[in-house]
Amino acid sequence: MQDNADIQSATSNFSKTIIRAWTTQVKRLTELFESIGNAELQKEIAPQKNTGVYLLGHLVAVHDAMLPLLGFGKKNYPHLEKPFLADADKSGNEFPAADQLLEYWKQVNNQLLKAFNELSPDQWLEKHEAVSAEDFAKEPHRNKLSVLISRTTHMSYHHGQLVLLKKK
Amino acid sequence: MQDNADIQSATSNFSKTIIRAWTTQVKRLTELFESIGNAELQKEIAPQKNTGVYLLGHLVAVHDAMLPLLGFGKKNYPHLEKPFLADADKSGNEFPAADQLLEYWKQVNNQLLKAFNELSPDQWLEKHEAVSAEDFAKEPHRNKLSVLISRTTHMSYHHGQLVLLKKK
Repeated sequence: MQDNADIQSATSNFSKTIIRAWTTQVKRLTELFESIGNAELQKEIAPQKNTGVYLLGHLVAVHDAMLPLLGFGKKNYPHLEKPFLADADKSGNEFPAADQLLEYWKQVNNQLLKAFNELSPDQWLEKHEAVSAEDFAKEPHRNKLSVLISRTTHMSYHHGQLVLLKKK
Repeated sequence: MQDNADIQSATSNFSKTIIRAWTTQVKRLTELFESIGNAELQKEIAPQKNTGVYLLGHLVAVHDAMLPLLGFGKKNYPHLEKPFLADADKSGNEFPAADQLLEYWKQVNNQLLKAFNELSPDQWLEKHEAVSAEDFAKEPHRNKLSVLISRTTHMSYHHGQLVLLKKK
């Protein structure tokens, strides 16, 4: 039984370590958005590249889509799908104000973190909603954990771009 | 015993999922470096920001430092420490050629992946070498797994920047 308890504690440490990495990235990005401010977020991260506000809306839309993908419920902001997922920046869509998007960002991340903390280590290894039971039997790595990790690296990818908007 | 085996398989699936995320990022970056090419790597990712070749050297140096940090052995390229870790870009250091750095990049990542695959799930939860046993008792999240995850997000951060060098 001791062994069993040790191993159970190990799986729990695995999921905790990964949730901590997610939380760290969310915190860094939130602080970055706040330090950049609304006016600077309207600028492009580099000439002819995405604007800060597009990337903020994109990140909100991607995190919002994690709710159904991980089986936590429906999207909060389906109206962000067209301007920030389907369409590229500068496609003529009107964007919500940056501070409104930042509120959405905080809201969806709070909701996700609460749901993450309620999943057991075993549930992290269950399939996510975009893979069929049949495919999952062949590809067991398409689990909820892989979604958490890929969305963590996705944040980091855009963090590296958004930091270019910071004034020295 | 069945339970025990199930849980052991769960810890193994956790570490496999995370190693897979690492491997995916390494592959994406390697392909990106190859598609950008030596000449474009000399350019800045955005006006007055880091050059591609600096970021390549920086990534090699950070991955090289994982060897001692995770207890796998000594650094291969200690001479990269000054130009790519201690000093900022454009500090007057002479850089190795980009294709030489790309060879280092492939070499160190092969070496790391081999060592990762030899670690048991329990070993991933052991302390890394930059934390004392005393501090680790208080902060058990400072484990080898957290190094793997933070270096995976680190790659992604710079990937988001290096992609700006790609021609449309």
